[in-house]
Amino acid sequence: MSVKTRTAVVDCDIHNAPRNEEALLRYMPKRWREARAAGGRLDAAVEARRETLGDRSYLGAQYPRATPRASRTDAWPPSGDPPASDLPFMREQLLDRYGIECGVLTPMLGAGEQLDLERGAALASAINDWQAAEWLEPEPRLRASINVAYEDGQLSADEIHRMAVDPRFVQVLMLIRTAEPLGRRKYWPIYEAAADHGLPVGIHFGGWSRGPNTGVGYGSYYIEDTVGMANAFADQLTSLVCEGVFDRFPGLKVVLIVGGIAWLAPLMWRLDRAWSLLRHEAPRLRRLPSEVIREHVWVTTQPIDEPSRPQDFMTLLQQMRMDDHILFATDYPHWDFDAPDRALPPSVPAALREAILRGNAHALYRLTDPAQTH
Amino acid sequence: MSVKTRTAVVDCDIHNAPRNEEALLRYMPKRWREARAAGGRLDAAVEARRETLGDRSYLGAQYPRATPRASRTDAWPPSGDPPASDLPFMREQLLDRYGIECGVLTPMLGAGEQLDLERGAALASAINDWQAAEWLEPEPRLRASINVAYEDGQLSADEIHRMAVDPRFVQVLMLIRTAEPLGRRKYWPIYEAAADHGLPVGIHFGGWSRGPNTGVGYGSYYIEDTVGMANAFADQLTSLVCEGVFDRFPGLKVVLIVGGIAWLAPLMWRLDRAWSLLRHEAPRLRRLPSEVIREHVWVTTQPIDEPSRPQDFMTLLQQMRMDDHILFATDYPHWDFDAPDRALPPSVPAALREAILRGNAHALYRLTDPAQTH
Repeated sequence: MSVKTRTAVVDCDIHNAPRNEEALLRYMPKRWREARAAGGRLDAAVEARRETLGDRSYLGAQYPRATPRASRTDAWPPSGDPPASDLPFMREQLLDRYGIECGVLTPMLGAGEQLDLERGAALASAINDWQAAEWLEPEPRLRASINVAYEDGQLSADEIHRMAVDPRFVQVLMLIRTAEPLGRRKYWPIYEAAADHGLPVGIHFGGWSRGPNTGVGYGSYYIEDTVGMANAFADQLTSLVCEGVFDRFPGLKVVLIVGGIAWLAPLMWRLDRAWSLLRHEAPRLRRLPSEVIREHVWVTTQPIDEPSRPQDFMTLLQQMRMDDHILFATDYPHWDFDAPDRALPPSVPAALREAILRGNAHALYRLTDPAQTH
Repeated sequence: MSVKTRTAVVDCDIHNAPRNEEALLRYMPKRWREARAAGGRLDAAVEARRETLGDRSYLGAQYPRATPRASRTDAWPPSGDPPASDLPFMREQLLDRYGIECGVLTPMLGAGEQLDLERGAALASAINDWQAAEWLEPEPRLRASINVAYEDGQLSADEIHRMAVDPRFVQVLMLIRTAEPLGRRKYWPIYEAAADHGLPVGIHFGGWSRGPNTGVGYGSYYIEDTVGMANAFADQLTSLVCEGVFDRFPGLKVVLIVGGIAWLAPLMWRLDRAWSLLRHEAPRLRRLPSEVIREHVWVTTQPIDEPSRPQDFMTLLQQMRMDDHILFATDYPHWDFDAPDRALPPSVPAALREAILRGNAHALYRLTDPAQTH
């Protein structure tokens, strides 16, 4: 079945994955390969994810399906390899089928979640080298995200400097649940390095908090995790804004990936009101929070958080006033995949549809810059 | 200065307080008075709150001002007693000045936050007896909230049964940050007892989580706490809905007090979408989450979370579709007090203004029921 879409599409969230653990491990230095073979932490994390159907403990967000990385059941390639690990099948199922002109890879393989930070940094470098060699090299429609061991600012900055020379890497990747709120100083070297290279920092749904995954304890169901993740995004954006990170690094751009969009306008109202009453307490924040957000923050459509009445969707966009900062993403191959031809309600005008599906991503990631072509 | 308001007003959030610790302690059994005199936990909590100006640690939300209970600086009575502890001054500054026909007391004095649960239950009973004797008895415009040691369901239910015979107690009071998400079974006896007596459960801004006060760690500023509290409300409502609490106790009504309102519509959209994909995982939730919320949940106006463009306020209400579930509250004597004549934008039509300022509270709390008059 072929699907016609009116406009070319840029997909800002594609999760590629290694065929098996060896496919990635061979990019790691020998020392870490051996540590891994002796039963490293990656093993346990991967196994835990495989066994999450029905069994949830105090670890935080768990995927709702037993397939690797919460994938659509039809995302298994004919080869039998795991979803999103087979480039020819991804071409067929995603890039060709939906006319994806350009797609940004966002592999989530645990680089930022290692207790051994140097192991995390080695894993991040391996993921980046693997993306360059096995995904960017054979497929010119793809761009990549620089993985970093984001719980250490300096190790992350080093990796950003190493990879930013390759223009096919168009952003730095973090996850939204972290050990501390993202505005705190430990993360500043990441923002500084990214801003220096003109790279946005993409922050994706997921990660592991070091305490309960809400501010009021552990919920019983995955449905609470996936709904509550929007609150993690709101908390992190609050921290970034209140700590004055965007004043400190004026070139910093942040992309909130797969966090939804509907919570943003109410958060801006609440922040603006609190700032008008309490600005003396957060001296590094010198402007109205909503102004800072509208200048420095981008969001992706997946999930679209569509209001129950379709006409409310345009109202939502009018409240946000961030039309040129909304990017399209499929979240392929995850279970809650959004198809480009169905992600936006019919009420979205053609020009805005084109901007969300393509133009905004071109402007942010400079996809049309000649320097971007390899 | 006298202020004219077009309609009588019901204030759904007035924080009265004891004149000094002795004023409340004399309502406690001797055993607890002595424990207190020897340096009980209440002491430490009260002292900690007095010293929060500029000094924040890992305890969670702290008030931004050194005045007791985050009060307006003009809320000190001429007697020199603490804000909200002097009924004649409260009459003058709040009830008379703004034409408050009826006000619901919501004293926040730590009953639910004691590690020694039996001490908490004794403190809750003392607060309730003190409210009856020193506030409801002399002032017929006031109603009260039943304080409970809400981290124990059974002790709380016992206190609800004890107090519900007095029709001047119109709701049960909890705080939004708790040891576990509010949908979990340990809290069910509270909901059962409240529903049995037809009493709403009011859940107020504040409380202490047992971990970081967000799902992503501890923020640096109070401004992050006060903005992020909306996310605690969203997480708790998600838990209550997903655990099927409202199906289990069909008579249960919940009032979210001082949590803002703008986050509610986006949460309903997100919950409905997640439920449509994941309903098999939360089998006790049998209906669309937004339907459950619109039937069982009320919110107060303080803070109003007013959009930056006044015309957006009516849009917000249209997205919520909960016009008859919005209650007015001043949050007196707190620093972010909302005056009845300024809390709602001019765009709110007269009938809706009357409903929010008065009618909705009458219907919920049955203030006009003859049985309510003492």
